[in-house]
Amino acid sequence: MKELGYYNGRIGELSQMSVPMNDRACWFGDGVYEAGMCRNYRIFAIDEHVDRLYRSASMLEISVPVPKDGLKLILDGLVRKMDTGDLMVYCQVTRGGGPRQHAFPDGPANLWVTLRPKKINTAEAPVGLITAEDTRFFHCNIKTLNLIPSVMANEKARRAGCYECVLYRPGGRVTECSHSNVHIIKDGTFFTAPTDNLILPGIARAHLINACGQLGIPVSETPFTLDELMNADEIITSSSTAPCVRACSVDGTGAGMKREDLFSALKKAVFDEYYSQTSAEA
Amino acid sequence: MKELGYYNGRIGELSQMSVPMNDRACWFGDGVYEAGMCRNYRIFAIDEHVDRLYRSASMLEISVPVPKDGLKLILDGLVRKMDTGDLMVYCQVTRGGGPRQHAFPDGPANLWVTLRPKKINTAEAPVGLITAEDTRFFHCNIKTLNLIPSVMANEKARRAGCYECVLYRPGGRVTECSHSNVHIIKDGTFFTAPTDNLILPGIARAHLINACGQLGIPVSETPFTLDELMNADEIITSSSTAPCVRACSVDGTGAGMKREDLFSALKKAVFDEYYSQTSAEA
Repeated sequence: MKELGYYNGRIGELSQMSVPMNDRACWFGDGVYEAGMCRNYRIFAIDEHVDRLYRSASMLEISVPVPKDGLKLILDGLVRKMDTGDLMVYCQVTRGGGPRQHAFPDGPANLWVTLRPKKINTAEAPVGLITAEDTRFFHCNIKTLNLIPSVMANEKARRAGCYECVLYRPGGRVTECSHSNVHIIKDGTFFTAPTDNLILPGIARAHLINACGQLGIPVSETPFTLDELMNADEIITSSSTAPCVRACSVDGTGAGMKREDLFSALKKAVFDEYYSQTSAEA
Repeated sequence: MKELGYYNGRIGELSQMSVPMNDRACWFGDGVYEAGMCRNYRIFAIDEHVDRLYRSASMLEISVPVPKDGLKLILDGLVRKMDTGDLMVYCQVTRGGGPRQHAFPDGPANLWVTLRPKKINTAEAPVGLITAEDTRFFHCNIKTLNLIPSVMANEKARRAGCYECVLYRPGGRVTECSHSNVHIIKDGTFFTAPTDNLILPGIARAHLINACGQLGIPVSETPFTLDELMNADEIITSSSTAPCVRACSVDGTGAGMKREDLFSALKKAVFDEYYSQTSAEA
């Protein structure tokens, strides 16, 4: 198949797939999701994605309708149906359906999957960033479908010709971007926001931290501010689809780009891991 | 029809209706909505609901795919298809479809309507309330589909055997409830939160304020705190489906219930207006 959609066992070309109007995704955005990369029909970091999906669901008291191993089997089986093994694997669980009412429904949760051809974004050229106040809710550690503020921030970046929008809370604390985490290197140390309720605990972020460990780069999980972002030696964004992106400007002003040695070492470590774990022989 | 679903011109029994998996409601909750009451096939306050829908859409740069008069014609036409004229009329507009990407799509927005039999909630008996911290985003003035925190708060109220969950921001400022506004009467004055970005500018709230004007009850649109809520003479919640509800307890402690004269006069005014504007002869 070219682009696959899956809903509670039903499978079809994504553009032809429909879902019940009464799914609570439609009325409340009442669900959680994961998105990860697949290469050579091998889903990268599948255990971490599945674990986080269940954790997100658990925090909202949504019962994923299959056990973890069952979900992995479903995802692996769906990937095998595709014309290419280089894919974005997207999976979400929504809190059932039934008549629209805020309180939880009685029935089971619904499982959605989409698969689309995609290669990981290696971001060869440095990117521009913009900034905007972070007006999101205080559950950003849960990967939910309540994404309007992220949509608005991402559109703002697109219109500015930039790659991402860095969000900051009143007072200037940088949280994350519209669909990426953001990190800085300063004086040889890798700084990244702590995993509280203001950021998603990114899987690419965790792999970057591991890479720092391998390379002997000190890591500090402490909040940093917009000022510190502007004065950083390097600014790096990460997401599952673009795990190590170098930024060269913030709101039109040049920034970062002072420690190519550390950035390149980190990027090489992250991609070496990705390519080795998804090699045809893996 | 018993329960109607409408999607971009397609109509069916709601439980049988499906929507494209790629509608952005499904991935981002990327849309806005309205819910209002209909009696005798007459939609109450339809102009106010339609105006607010367009205002919500505009704030998110969503173009409603029909003009206001066209939408009113669609809603009136759909209501006529129903077995009863006593309905909840629900309408939402989502930001189009297409491949999942945060930035805006090129195509038009999608129009959804559901109609379900329902009578307005006259709430004859006083209700209990609970409280919870308001952890929502800072766009609560927009009636969006990003409703997970409201879902969680409403479920919390249900489990406590209560009618609603009153939300407060850190510091104790009361904002609103999971799907209602909340107001107090103290020393003869009707206090209600101002319409900033922390509350929805409720249509039932506006009608209550009008009723205060008719009755000579002073209105103060100033924030009040949890302490002031606990010490109020009356506590009233309002929503389109339950426009004037009297509360008798907060978190299990007796509260309000000291100015039945004012509460009853307000409730009578609100329901007199509702019944007269939706009478069979209206």
